[in-house]
Amino acid sequence: MAECEAKERKILVGVDEGEASMYALSWCLNNILVSQNSKDTLVLCYAKPPRPVSTAIDGAGRRELRGYMCSPNIIATMDKYANELVEFVMEKAKRLLKEFHNLDVRVEKIVESGDPKDVICHAAEKLDVDMVVLGSHGYGLMKRAFVGSVSNHCAQKAKCPVLIVKMPKSTCPSK
Amino acid sequence: MAECEAKERKILVGVDEGEASMYALSWCLNNILVSQNSKDTLVLCYAKPPRPVSTAIDGAGRRELRGYMCSPNIIATMDKYANELVEFVMEKAKRLLKEFHNLDVRVEKIVESGDPKDVICHAAEKLDVDMVVLGSHGYGLMKRAFVGSVSNHCAQKAKCPVLIVKMPKSTCPSK
Repeated sequence: MAECEAKERKILVGVDEGEASMYALSWCLNNILVSQNSKDTLVLCYAKPPRPVSTAIDGAGRRELRGYMCSPNIIATMDKYANELVEFVMEKAKRLLKEFHNLDVRVEKIVESGDPKDVICHAAEKLDVDMVVLGSHGYGLMKRAFVGSVSNHCAQKAKCPVLIVKMPKSTCPSK
Repeated sequence: MAECEAKERKILVGVDEGEASMYALSWCLNNILVSQNSKDTLVLCYAKPPRPVSTAIDGAGRRELRGYMCSPNIIATMDKYANELVEFVMEKAKRLLKEFHNLDVRVEKIVESGDPKDVICHAAEKLDVDMVVLGSHGYGLMKRAFVGSVSNHCAQKAKCPVLIVKMPKSTCPSK
């Protein structure tokens, strides 16, 4: 019945360019993933900022989507920057994972554009994960607008257990 | 550095008479406590409902605490009922723990009167726990007034990681 058998678990960790998410990943590796016998899958989930769009009222008074409010050049630059951020974050996570070389977990990466709370909840449901792990101090440089709401939202909406890992004050980056 | 060494962890689980908290305890035993080498302490934290009090305006127009709004007999009955609930919940938790007989965790119990969210956060801080685990469906028969706010509040206020365990729909008790 309630035996300590290793199970195949899928654990999603929301990662971004902030230290809090790396701390959450580290905490998860130390306390959750360390537990089982290499049957776990760690899903690193990164939400790219959505492209800025604008709306306007058309001739008939209907609100229409005008598309990008920036020039193609600026969009291309932002895309490049966003892709660099993905690389940067995943590289950071990879370095952290290397420290846990005795853990033999499978690692999957998922990168989607959108509000982190939607991306995370959607990925959690789509991949049918057993647990979502989130850091609680902000949500990265370009997603400050969503600060605070991500962990709350996911705790409410996700169908699986949600672990909110707060950075101890001593390790918080200065703001 | 980041090795898989067993650490002494203290994990607080909020328990009450609802099924959600027992599911959270079970999930914790299966996924968190199973991991380490018998160096964990499980703290079962139960919040007794506070005694009802009333306030009134005194002769000078000041608001004063009138004490209990119920007769001593009713208070005694309520106290008895509350104590029986504590026994009931702790017995339920004990039965669940027995199913995990191969886990050798130390078990501590903490019972305090008050709003569950305050009791849990206070106990977590006082005992300097490494993690708080909470069920998310309601908070027991006598604490319906606090429903929904407990896990949110603790996720915001507790200084340690907070795990919110939602009961799968298939196992939810009918409402």
